[in-house]
Amino acid sequence: MDQVWMQKAIELAKLGQYSTRPNPNVGCVIVKDGTLVGEGFHPQAGQPHAEVFAMRQAGESAKGATAYVTLEPCAHYGRTPPCAKGLVEAGVAKVVVACADPNPLVSGKGVDILRQAGIVVETGVCEQQAAQLNLGFLKAMAIGIPYVRLKVASSLDGRTAMASGESKWITGTESRQDVQHWRAISGAVITGIETILADDPQLNVRSLAHVDLEKVVQPKRVILDRKGRLPLTAQVLKHPETVMIMGPFREELAELGVVQLEIQPLKDLLRTLKDFQIYDVLVEAGATLSTAFLQEKLVDELISYVAPTFLGQSARPMFNAEFEKMAQQLRFMLKDVHQFGDDIRLRLLPAQESV
Amino acid sequence: MDQVWMQKAIELAKLGQYSTRPNPNVGCVIVKDGTLVGEGFHPQAGQPHAEVFAMRQAGESAKGATAYVTLEPCAHYGRTPPCAKGLVEAGVAKVVVACADPNPLVSGKGVDILRQAGIVVETGVCEQQAAQLNLGFLKAMAIGIPYVRLKVASSLDGRTAMASGESKWITGTESRQDVQHWRAISGAVITGIETILADDPQLNVRSLAHVDLEKVVQPKRVILDRKGRLPLTAQVLKHPETVMIMGPFREELAELGVVQLEIQPLKDLLRTLKDFQIYDVLVEAGATLSTAFLQEKLVDELISYVAPTFLGQSARPMFNAEFEKMAQQLRFMLKDVHQFGDDIRLRLLPAQESV
Repeated sequence: MDQVWMQKAIELAKLGQYSTRPNPNVGCVIVKDGTLVGEGFHPQAGQPHAEVFAMRQAGESAKGATAYVTLEPCAHYGRTPPCAKGLVEAGVAKVVVACADPNPLVSGKGVDILRQAGIVVETGVCEQQAAQLNLGFLKAMAIGIPYVRLKVASSLDGRTAMASGESKWITGTESRQDVQHWRAISGAVITGIETILADDPQLNVRSLAHVDLEKVVQPKRVILDRKGRLPLTAQVLKHPETVMIMGPFREELAELGVVQLEIQPLKDLLRTLKDFQIYDVLVEAGATLSTAFLQEKLVDELISYVAPTFLGQSARPMFNAEFEKMAQQLRFMLKDVHQFGDDIRLRLLPAQESV
Repeated sequence: MDQVWMQKAIELAKLGQYSTRPNPNVGCVIVKDGTLVGEGFHPQAGQPHAEVFAMRQAGESAKGATAYVTLEPCAHYGRTPPCAKGLVEAGVAKVVVACADPNPLVSGKGVDILRQAGIVVETGVCEQQAAQLNLGFLKAMAIGIPYVRLKVASSLDGRTAMASGESKWITGTESRQDVQHWRAISGAVITGIETILADDPQLNVRSLAHVDLEKVVQPKRVILDRKGRLPLTAQVLKHPETVMIMGPFREELAELGVVQLEIQPLKDLLRTLKDFQIYDVLVEAGATLSTAFLQEKLVDELISYVAPTFLGQSARPMFNAEFEKMAQQLRFMLKDVHQFGDDIRLRLLPAQESV
């Protein structure tokens, strides 16, 4: 039954997927004598943690009960008192944890507090699934680099636009709607200045089914603009407080409140974004920048929309490296495939180097 | 319940999918008082039709029973007496038919015989599904052109080989195994001489899970060789009796028993193949021939294997037409998507011209 209850806690955690950033998504259920007596999830930074909501609902029923939490209860005094202490005070008999705290400095401390109080603790239940809730948080806390998703959209013959640049639309409305989800779970969307100059996109979250957009934490828009070409009329600057630009310092951007970053290699840029509490990055860029992320092995997950159409060999290629031998290929493993109207979406993970 | 029994008849018909060519796949069940009393399928040209097996099994129980047949019972004396007459003599009370006979000269005649004998006839039950059994037979009988499937296999960036020609292997073993199915349901595999010269393939059926290969009707191998370059040492010529070549007449090929066809446009070639009782064609060719079939709108179904790898922009494109505008694109509709290891297979149908 542990797995069934943890599933429930995972489902609860997902309710915060668009609104908790930079905090992780966490869900909690408290179960007594086979009955759910309390449930909660972390809804937003500054709000109580999942365990607090669950304990409030359980009240006296928490005594002798089992708590299921998707992430190790915290041991530190932050915006809220430590949840591990709260669980001790509530009198639970057992705590089941999916993922340990990824921060090497505090990992295990929450569990220690619980065990020292005589509470039975079990860890690793549904760990893989729970980890999917917080891929960025877990990676960034563990090694200091955000989780990078690269979005690409192409025709069946691997093209992203005609030679002229004409590209509306290769993928259908359902695929484009799905992209909103990936933006909404990201701390930042990274793009290149060429994409801004060509399409003038907003790169923000504008529609999500059944979701109140006001609760969505909008991603930062990170623009790589080495030559300082961003026009002040660009759509992204309508909300300058969520724009970050890597390029030469420009006074007029500073006045708008845009964060300006020094020109640095992509990997260093990712580390810098982590310092801004950006743990999930979505790259939505043209072939040159996308190819650079791929070639530098910085992509954790490739989200590839393929539209069932042929655009021909003079159309623009999605990947512009030049390989001579099959041994140079960049190979991925298939995580899953979904249909969006006539398009498909592949989620791909880098293959092991040995493949 | 009619649909449930017809489903059963369709499943039976599939048992002959690799062995009945040039005959269609047909299944039949006979049901009395809600109980199946006879079943059969057409196993092979020269063997009895599905109805005959079902009636034999039903015996006296056929009287007053209902027969479900996936294709209209035949009305002509061929290798076997007409099945419509057989059903009348067996005394069935009702016949349920999925697909009408597609041949405009005989369509409806089987049903007429049944009705004239006072048998209740219902048609069109599960027609769409039953039609999938015999797409080639139905199309060829109706309009004189085989059903054309085009197989393509590419990387995510739409490449089929490195510039050098190196291509082993882009797709995985599971995808390549799946191709055997499509060959085995085809009356012919069409390829170009360049593919023969480059890869020296056999293009026959060599392995099918749980299937006795001796019962499989091997597809003809049709080679487009306008300049007569096929070497006599080519692998395909190990079984010359199943080779057809479109090219200049060559005495040495005639001696081997190879069928030689005049050089003719692709559409005329397809009509010619129909005269050889080839109703399902699988095109397995390089980009030039594949692109020609696509551009001439001769493809009924595109079977596209996509491997999750990038080969780079100097690798060979899968589709080599040159389009300037999005309006020229060749767009498809998604029929279904399947996973084969890390590859996916898309089955695509041409989009309507208006799209």
